[in-house]
Amino acid sequence: MHTLNITPGGVSYPVFIGQQLLGNPELLAPFIRGHQVAVVSSKKAASLYLETLRKALGHFQVTEITLEDGEPTKSLAMLEHVVDCLLRDKHERSTTLIALGGGVTGDLCGFSASCYMRGVSFIQIPTTLLAQVDSSVGGKTGINHKRGKNMIGAFYQPACVLADVDVLATLPDRELSAGLAEVIKYGLIADPLFFAWLESHMDALVAKDSEALMQAVLSSCKNKALVVAEDEKEQGRRAILNFGHTFGHALETWAGYGNWLHGEAVAVGMVMATELSVRLGWVEEPLAERVRAVVQRANLPVSPPDDMKPEDFLDLMRVDKKTVGGQLRLVLLKALGEAVVTSTVPSGLLREQLAASCQET
Amino acid sequence: MHTLNITPGGVSYPVFIGQQLLGNPELLAPFIRGHQVAVVSSKKAASLYLETLRKALGHFQVTEITLEDGEPTKSLAMLEHVVDCLLRDKHERSTTLIALGGGVTGDLCGFSASCYMRGVSFIQIPTTLLAQVDSSVGGKTGINHKRGKNMIGAFYQPACVLADVDVLATLPDRELSAGLAEVIKYGLIADPLFFAWLESHMDALVAKDSEALMQAVLSSCKNKALVVAEDEKEQGRRAILNFGHTFGHALETWAGYGNWLHGEAVAVGMVMATELSVRLGWVEEPLAERVRAVVQRANLPVSPPDDMKPEDFLDLMRVDKKTVGGQLRLVLLKALGEAVVTSTVPSGLLREQLAASCQET
Repeated sequence: MHTLNITPGGVSYPVFIGQQLLGNPELLAPFIRGHQVAVVSSKKAASLYLETLRKALGHFQVTEITLEDGEPTKSLAMLEHVVDCLLRDKHERSTTLIALGGGVTGDLCGFSASCYMRGVSFIQIPTTLLAQVDSSVGGKTGINHKRGKNMIGAFYQPACVLADVDVLATLPDRELSAGLAEVIKYGLIADPLFFAWLESHMDALVAKDSEALMQAVLSSCKNKALVVAEDEKEQGRRAILNFGHTFGHALETWAGYGNWLHGEAVAVGMVMATELSVRLGWVEEPLAERVRAVVQRANLPVSPPDDMKPEDFLDLMRVDKKTVGGQLRLVLLKALGEAVVTSTVPSGLLREQLAASCQET
Repeated sequence: MHTLNITPGGVSYPVFIGQQLLGNPELLAPFIRGHQVAVVSSKKAASLYLETLRKALGHFQVTEITLEDGEPTKSLAMLEHVVDCLLRDKHERSTTLIALGGGVTGDLCGFSASCYMRGVSFIQIPTTLLAQVDSSVGGKTGINHKRGKNMIGAFYQPACVLADVDVLATLPDRELSAGLAEVIKYGLIADPLFFAWLESHMDALVAKDSEALMQAVLSSCKNKALVVAEDEKEQGRRAILNFGHTFGHALETWAGYGNWLHGEAVAVGMVMATELSVRLGWVEEPLAERVRAVVQRANLPVSPPDDMKPEDFLDLMRVDKKTVGGQLRLVLLKALGEAVVTSTVPSGLLREQLAASCQET
């Protein structure tokens, strides 16, 4: 088992990465302060892992809250439901919430923990690759509003994260691929060696090789931890983690939540952002070729749906949280492993890129 | 104008206390980072002060969100409404929310600011005495759940607080009295000299004398600031600010939100807590007599409604946030100006106190 310590805003918490972690009561116990625990899980995760977790929590008063899978769960109505269950079972400020599931579960459970009685402890047990390498680390929690994704939320850190790669064995191929999009992202924005490693190990990853997956999760979390430690509240450098996400969120919103997986949209967004970086003369075309190749080998799409138009992107990107002063901010590449945030992309070049991306298919 | 700097968790912000502050654009401008502002106000506060504030905000893009007066506004539905208005007008992360109103407005606006795009800046302009001396200072924000008050919220600090005592001239007598309950509280829990000053100036306060009110707001905020600076997240000492509130919240919930003013319920709660402290032998009966006298001179009640029973208190106090390990925690007095948090009150004594309080009328 690897232990990675993440230190955003001065408070440190561990991310445990390994095999057979889920049923280990000794791993969890030090992070539960009181006698009460609430496990918030998705139906799918509950059916696969709740029994194992329940055994590991034998001595605690446990409330089980099982939610529908999928993005619609990230709603104010589900927040109210979680709070209702907690109050019904008289959970006190010393309670601990455990998120057992993917990113949706972690985001909703984390936000619930951040605001239940103005904040209680919580633990992340991510059961998808995407959640293990991305949403469970870094403290971003939140729910959606009909006008935009993650518009209501908090920066709120877990007490610990338990990333058990054994759970990835049951993950559908499509979801594994979606997670690999974020894995590739870390290589592109911060770690050229890791990107090269991914180019040579993508087949093992797609085949769900445990050793390869453990390495991928570890390197991803390390890279994320370094960025988050510098900038907990996304005032500056942390924004590079949104590489591919401004285009990606627009695509996700356009398609309707849940029709495209987040990682699939981010994959397309990363290809677009790299191509735009080439257009600006910041990186060379061969890098864009390498990005498209590795994305394709991860069984991910490289262009938006046929019927999505440049104007759709422009309209949807204007309400993105990363907009500042009405000027669109984008994360682009200055080199392999070096991302920058820029708000000076000439709108003509942006339009050229959107036109090219929307015709590519 | 007095300026008080409050430093919870290392970040400092000013509380401005004085006259003619509301229409002063130079006071506000340094605390607005971007070009967007949203003023969240109650109908009552809007009708009295929005025009003045609007002039002071001449150069900014201003969204006005006016809400119903009263506790029902502290709901998830109203949070959603605020977020909807902000997104509709394309407010970005650099926006600033301004709460113009009483505690309800401040709590809802502050919580909205804490979670809109995972946190934006906000300014408190409290327009009731209660909000000026209590809810606007200290960073507690939140909304209600049908099972309990303030069950969903955040600790979130404003960029500044602007307490203009001129606005108290238009405050109904009943609301002024409700605010005086919290003022009296600071004397009781932390400041014997201030309590003595209150005993000699209560008539001036009830008559809305500006000088007396300014002194009362200043001393109250100073005492609160000292406690909050020590303990932002209510892990320990800050809990003494809840003196009178455990009984008071039970009374408020029992009566139905809005039927008793918060300060009225707290007044009764403080009398009960002082009497219970006498029962424990921690303070002498003459102190309880002084508390009842000053509370009555502030035109506040000293006992619960006739038809409220000891069992009603016990049932409602069990879901209070200050409960730990199933054991009821109470804030009581060890001396005038010295409050302690205790969970060792023999349940027999508590029941005796409740029986006495419920028969007193």
